[in-house]
Amino acid sequence: MPAFKLAQIAERIGGKLSGDPGIEIDGVAQIDKAGKGKITFLANPKYKQALQNSRASAVIVDQKTEITTSIPFILVPDAYYGFLQTFLLFNPAKKILEDGIHASAVVHDSANISADAAIGANVYIGAGVMVGSKTQIFPNCVILDDSKIGDDSILYPSVTIRENCSIGDRVVIHNGAVIGSDGFGFAFHEGKYHKIPQVGKVVIEDNVEIGANTTIDRATMGETIIKKGVKLDNLIQIAHNCIIDENTVIAAQTGISGSTSVGKNVVIAGQVGLVGHIKIGDGVQLGAQSGVTKDIPDGEIYFGYPARPVMHTKRIEAVVNNLPDLIKRIRRLEKEIAELKDRRSEVSGK
Amino acid sequence: MPAFKLAQIAERIGGKLSGDPGIEIDGVAQIDKAGKGKITFLANPKYKQALQNSRASAVIVDQKTEITTSIPFILVPDAYYGFLQTFLLFNPAKKILEDGIHASAVVHDSANISADAAIGANVYIGAGVMVGSKTQIFPNCVILDDSKIGDDSILYPSVTIRENCSIGDRVVIHNGAVIGSDGFGFAFHEGKYHKIPQVGKVVIEDNVEIGANTTIDRATMGETIIKKGVKLDNLIQIAHNCIIDENTVIAAQTGISGSTSVGKNVVIAGQVGLVGHIKIGDGVQLGAQSGVTKDIPDGEIYFGYPARPVMHTKRIEAVVNNLPDLIKRIRRLEKEIAELKDRRSEVSGK
Amino acid sequence: MPAFKLAQIAERIGGKLSGDPGIEIDGVAQIDKAGKGKITFLANPKYKQALQNSRASAVIVDQKTEITTSIPFILVPDAYYGFLQTFLLFNPAKKILEDGIHASAVVHDSANISADAAIGANVYIGAGVMVGSKTQIFPNCVILDDSKIGDDSILYPSVTIRENCSIGDRVVIHNGAVIGSDGFGFAFHEGKYHKIPQVGKVVIEDNVEIGANTTIDRATMGETIIKKGVKLDNLIQIAHNCIIDENTVIAAQTGISGSTSVGKNVVIAGQVGLVGHIKIGDGVQLGAQSGVTKDIPDGEIYFGYPARPVMHTKRIEAVVNNLPDLIKRIRRLEKEIAELKDRRSEVSGK
Repeated sequence: MPAFKLAQIAERIGGKLSGDPGIEIDGVAQIDKAGKGKITFLANPKYKQALQNSRASAVIVDQKTEITTSIPFILVPDAYYGFLQTFLLFNPAKKILEDGIHASAVVHDSANISADAAIGANVYIGAGVMVGSKTQIFPNCVILDDSKIGDDSILYPSVTIRENCSIGDRVVIHNGAVIGSDGFGFAFHEGKYHKIPQVGKVVIEDNVEIGANTTIDRATMGETIIKKGVKLDNLIQIAHNCIIDENTVIAAQTGISGSTSVGKNVVIAGQVGLVGHIKIGDGVQLGAQSGVTKDIPDGEIYFGYPARPVMHTKRIEAVVNNLPDLIKRIRRLEKEIAELKDRRSEVSGK
Repeated sequence: MPAFKLAQIAERIGGKLSGDPGIEIDGVAQIDKAGKGKITFLANPKYKQALQNSRASAVIVDQKTEITTSIPFILVPDAYYGFLQTFLLFNPAKKILEDGIHASAVVHDSANISADAAIGANVYIGAGVMVGSKTQIFPNCVILDDSKIGDDSILYPSVTIRENCSIGDRVVIHNGAVIGSDGFGFAFHEGKYHKIPQVGKVVIEDNVEIGANTTIDRATMGETIIKKGVKLDNLIQIAHNCIIDENTVIAAQTGISGSTSVGKNVVIAGQVGLVGHIKIGDGVQLGAQSGVTKDIPDGEIYFGYPARPVMHTKRIEAVVNNLPDLIKRIRRLEKEIAELKDRRSEVSGK
Repeated sequence: MPAFKLAQIAERIGGKLSGDPGIEIDGVAQIDKAGKGKITFLANPKYKQALQNSRASAVIVDQKTEITTSIPFILVPDAYYGFLQTFLLFNPAKKILEDGIHASAVVHDSANISADAAIGANVYIGAGVMVGSKTQIFPNCVILDDSKIGDDSILYPSVTIRENCSIGDRVVIHNGAVIGSDGFGFAFHEGKYHKIPQVGKVVIEDNVEIGANTTIDRATMGETIIKKGVKLDNLIQIAHNCIIDENTVIAAQTGISGSTSVGKNVVIAGQVGLVGHIKIGDGVQLGAQSGVTKDIPDGEIYFGYPARPVMHTKRIEAVVNNLPDLIKRIRRLEKEIAELKDRRSEVSGK
């Protein structure tokens, strides 16, 4: 591990240092685990107390957060991002694969592999495939005919890409992810399902990350599109002809049905399900395990099964939680009314 | 792309042509994207309006649908199926793999590979495996000892099949799907779980399609069976000893627990969960994200968590949606009764 | 298949035999499928009736279960475990892979492979990897640099393990499972997500089983830990920095978010979701499809969406199921009160 003076770190992350600039820092650590020589961060004010007990040698603090601490600190506009920059300082990207094409890889003569790309063992690359500069393809990946991968991308082991798909620059695809499998489309005719050929493709734009064992189906016709900066977690299903717009983040095990479009800057939690042919607006947030059956306008926060505006779902949940009491209140009401009716009869003499 | 006269298409799909038989058609397209030279289809009457604005050169129309259009059309009994046939005309199945066994594939001497099968790069085929005529096995697939694959089947990249499983004819298995992994069975004894060997197998019958990264576990004893014509989407879990009967369709991320049987012609939406040891009747339909805990008789439509008959679930949902109002109504009732009791006391003088 | 006298089986499983000790048994079978020569078991009293009709030659019975049967039986303290032992007698572990390193495997010079390990075809093993005694690594697995696998473990086909992970002894990992993929961590800064390097690792302790296509992410810093004896089913997601404690069992398609810890001897059913940064106590049980958003104390049984104590959820469900009736009762109450108010006006003359 390299070491840096605190002043060097402050300069690198554009922060204002308070404390001894000459302190030597040799690594980063979580607030409760950091010891001597380590720098930590305080982004969430609720960890202020933990900072009192921290043995870190320095801390990166959000300038919005008021702190009193004897630990040297660096003030930055965004402590989490400042920490990320520091983290990168101590953890520069490691290259595991050697450049060039491994002897055991099978690469079609017509493929166009950049000279500084790295192609691992037992990789298969089909006819007409293009692989860009500095892209790393780990062992046992498969890329079928005419697919294109841009520059500086990483395909971890056993990623498989069907024919004629397009992957941008700086894309990271984790182990076992599948790009371009057939969409799930059948015509029911005379008691049987007949497969509809899926002749479209998948387009993955720049700076996308795709989690392990996630599956993205090719379009029936046209394109399934994952736009710039989208981050997909593990075991997600993206069906044919979906469009996921820029900088949207989707957590693990969520499934999006065919032809649904998701806007920009959307945040979808884990295990959410979206039906097909709907439109989720920009900036929407969807809570975990929600079931979405309708269009959602820009900027809304939805949650629940079925998904409803989050405040409505929370009000419903509060009532549901008390339903066993509610039923008692209704029984009491029924009894009281019965009594009132009896007494009324007495009073009126009816 | 090939081109056909409209009359040729009408004849091929058995439809009645209205319009110039000599119009040249060079491809198929969606109703809103079709331009000159393209044929589209109208199966769902709600797209009638879209047809008015379509620039397609022809349209395949369901004979049940009444239309008035200046676009030449072909009437057929089932427009979607007619479109599928036309689609196939313009998109004949493409062969990507070359016949024969790739030099890098590892095939056991005792395996029996049909001479016209195609075995891709880095494939492993174990002892006693049989691969039928015209079957294509894409790069990096693994088929362990004594498994059998029929004719005209396709295993896309990285499909893995454990020992002693049986795959029929015209089966399509997408990237990363797993056939024959151990069932999840343990005996709890003296504080630990002891593995129960899973010595059964998986049988996949003819015309089945299995989605990417779907997993089908082998039986503890006997067989896990996927019957003729079943279509499974991506990331589905089929546990040990399940039986999925003919022509059933299951959408992505659904999970079926051990020893559950699903009838014929069942439609299961995405992210549904079924507990073990239950029986789902023929023709049942299950809504998305349903949780099924009991047998369901033939022909029923169930939905919800827990799954209930769909009309019951919808009635419940309507009430649930208004629960915050309901609680107000109950509070008002309680107040009114309290007032009535007070007044009754006044009236009766008690 | 080997054959054993009934007395030999009774001795092997430590049971008390009632019936002819010389009966020859040549296999095990389920109670309704067992024929002559087969031994079955009765662990669940509800199958007593099935035993009456069984044609098995012998049965292993729980000593807690009272039975009257003409079939010879062996009494044991735990019939299911007794059956497991018998099962193992007839189904000794079969070795499919040959010892040694297959010629097509690519093994880095610096890797340390035990002489009696088996490394299958097209496997890739990176620099500094250690593989223990009698461990079997099936075709097309990938193990990246510096990861360690203990003794007597099995990696089925296409398992991929990223760099610097640690796998114990007697671990079974099924096809396509992913160990050590990057955790899902990004810092949002100036409208974009910036990847946080995931420099931690995954530790899998002894006697763990991991299902097909399950994904376990490496820690951001530190370790994601799966402790001794944990059993994970297929298609499960374990996020970065999770800890799953000893002898916990998790069914298929469950997802556990980042930094959540799960106690010892926990049982989690299928398709459950847990949010991040929570703590599930020892001995907790979670029903299928539950959504867990808060810490759960030791020994609790939770169920539902959101997860609540099971009796509370059941009471809620019973009320929910009758909500359509409840709304009618409330309407009736409202009507009756309106009438009472009218009559009260009459009586009081107001």
